[in-house]
Amino acid sequence: MATMTAPPSDTKEIVEINYNYKDIVKRLSPGGRYIDAQTDVDSPWVPFGEGAAIKHLAFDVRRNLFSNILWMKGPGTIGTHLHRGTVTMVCLEGSVRYLEYDWVASPGGLILEVPGEAHTLVTEHPDGVKLFGWMEGPIEFYDDKANLVEVADVWWFINHYETYCRENGIPINEKLYV
Amino acid sequence: MATMTAPPSDTKEIVEINYNYKDIVKRLSPGGRYIDAQTDVDSPWVPFGEGAAIKHLAFDVRRNLFSNILWMKGPGTIGTHLHRGTVTMVCLEGSVRYLEYDWVASPGGLILEVPGEAHTLVTEHPDGVKLFGWMEGPIEFYDDKANLVEVADVWWFINHYETYCRENGIPINEKLYV
Amino acid sequence: MATMTAPPSDTKEIVEINYNYKDIVKRLSPGGRYIDAQTDVDSPWVPFGEGAAIKHLAFDVRRNLFSNILWMKGPGTIGTHLHRGTVTMVCLEGSVRYLEYDWVASPGGLILEVPGEAHTLVTEHPDGVKLFGWMEGPIEFYDDKANLVEVADVWWFINHYETYCRENGIPINEKLYV
Amino acid sequence: MATMTAPPSDTKEIVEINYNYKDIVKRLSPGGRYIDAQTDVDSPWVPFGEGAAIKHLAFDVRRNLFSNILWMKGPGTIGTHLHRGTVTMVCLEGSVRYLEYDWVASPGGLILEVPGEAHTLVTEHPDGVKLFGWMEGPIEFYDDKANLVEVADVWWFINHYETYCRENGIPINEKLYV
Repeated sequence: MATMTAPPSDTKEIVEINYNYKDIVKRLSPGGRYIDAQTDVDSPWVPFGEGAAIKHLAFDVRRNLFSNILWMKGPGTIGTHLHRGTVTMVCLEGSVRYLEYDWVASPGGLILEVPGEAHTLVTEHPDGVKLFGWMEGPIEFYDDKANLVEVADVWWFINHYETYCRENGIPINEKLYV
Repeated sequence: MATMTAPPSDTKEIVEINYNYKDIVKRLSPGGRYIDAQTDVDSPWVPFGEGAAIKHLAFDVRRNLFSNILWMKGPGTIGTHLHRGTVTMVCLEGSVRYLEYDWVASPGGLILEVPGEAHTLVTEHPDGVKLFGWMEGPIEFYDDKANLVEVADVWWFINHYETYCRENGIPINEKLYV
Repeated sequence: MATMTAPPSDTKEIVEINYNYKDIVKRLSPGGRYIDAQTDVDSPWVPFGEGAAIKHLAFDVRRNLFSNILWMKGPGTIGTHLHRGTVTMVCLEGSVRYLEYDWVASPGGLILEVPGEAHTLVTEHPDGVKLFGWMEGPIEFYDDKANLVEVADVWWFINHYETYCRENGIPINEKLYV
Repeated sequence: MATMTAPPSDTKEIVEINYNYKDIVKRLSPGGRYIDAQTDVDSPWVPFGEGAAIKHLAFDVRRNLFSNILWMKGPGTIGTHLHRGTVTMVCLEGSVRYLEYDWVASPGGLILEVPGEAHTLVTEHPDGVKLFGWMEGPIEFYDDKANLVEVADVWWFINHYETYCRENGIPINEKLYV
């Protein structure tokens, strides 16, 4: 087999692949899906304090996995927090940095965070930042006296989403639960 | 412990958390990191056929995990392919859909794909699409006669990146290897 | 917080932990579970050729994850196969080795296998081997002429289990599907 | 491609598979490995209180993953603890149960535990239990007054292993660090 250097087909039609397990996949797969972020139809912006909001995109309770967009609406800080799991973030709009590091994230950039890291998120962009996150495992949030305030994991994020929906008469979107 | 409803600190300074294992983390963690996508300094656009390119962002060979931005520079198709693993994608610019589904992805939207799904990616946007991907496990690419052409997994993606770097005198960026 | 050096409680009773999300966990968690291997009540031994059998323990189609016990009933070989994902195995009984490496696994020993490895499993123990496996991602099986015969992933394993159950009037055990 | 029903090869020799990326795998893979549990050569039994010990088998700091054998040397309890991640356990010897559930694990049996579960581990077997564990994400240990005593994750487990090695002049085994 030669190494592929271009997409092997650009035919704009479905090619029927010979695959033995189509029926089982159909019966048992939770199915792929798309969660829109341009509107609030799939998922609303849920306030996270005065100047921030979270649009929840996905939850997998089997893996303690949660995905969302964090929107900081202008310059601001999310105080020091400690990661017990792994975090993958992509800057979508604006910019963001951590006080602990020397880089500034801009649109399209990938931020990787690993277990055992504590850091302090800051945006100095006039429009703040929109950050896509794909996170597995808890995040410990501390106050400015270093007191532990919350261990936020998939359950906190589900509760954050569902509480807001309940209080605002918004139906729960089953698509978010993988 | 009450439920957190806002970031418990917005103090723009590092709070020293009492954490027992700082020294071990320092010694053994591969460390978080940032991979920029605004320039080609961290990672170049590597051609993937005539009308597409890939900016490789991360590789984890332990998990067969690879992350990148797929850029289709105008309307086009990536033919039917089959996923043996899980895929998380975020549309960054333009728009994209699959012939098999009824949604069209727009910026910020999250696409989830699961093992056993085959589909055909199409962008009809005049500017094409930029798609961030976080992928674990192989993708089987087929030609338009349904012949298997390549099983693309972390090794194909590393080879795609490194071959281009070698041929163009670009130094390998160690940051991409988690 | 001091470092724990012993279990902080050996009280043989349930301690009620103050945890905010008990109700959500109760509602949404798939729940932990136990799959017995001493009998065939939870899962039967499904033949895998003449001299081997597989007791399927768990399937997670979201992650292409499958778990089982492979039983080789006497000395024998499972020909060269290539891993596209990660494998964690524990030798439960007997012994096993790979032609490619210099160790021999014995009870309690942990075998780790990573993407991109091909190897040939051999047991020379008179009673063969029982191997617990926790596997994520496909395994490519080849014949002795190096022809690809099957890409075995979670779907093959589910089909292997369900076909046998169907043919033998054994009810499908929902507990195996995480 | 027909469905495989038996190992496609039982030839006791290495079959050379046509695989394009052998050189990259060789250069970049951490490599599979075997950690023995029959002796203390690969990893010693590290005391965990009076009646228990842990044989550490693997650590992956990228994923907060740790693997070990927990040995309770006779009847005893490990008090209520809360899982923030996922746990896969296999009973190797003896037996074990949780006060919260109605099953008793015996050799070969698979225990699955999911995020958000708290439970209390008990062995009533005269010889106690040996439990293989493959764990991802933190475990919160509480005392019998429901006070949080330790958040044990990969860093606690590494520290537990390394402290004992240091105090007893045992060299650190690099193989345990994936």
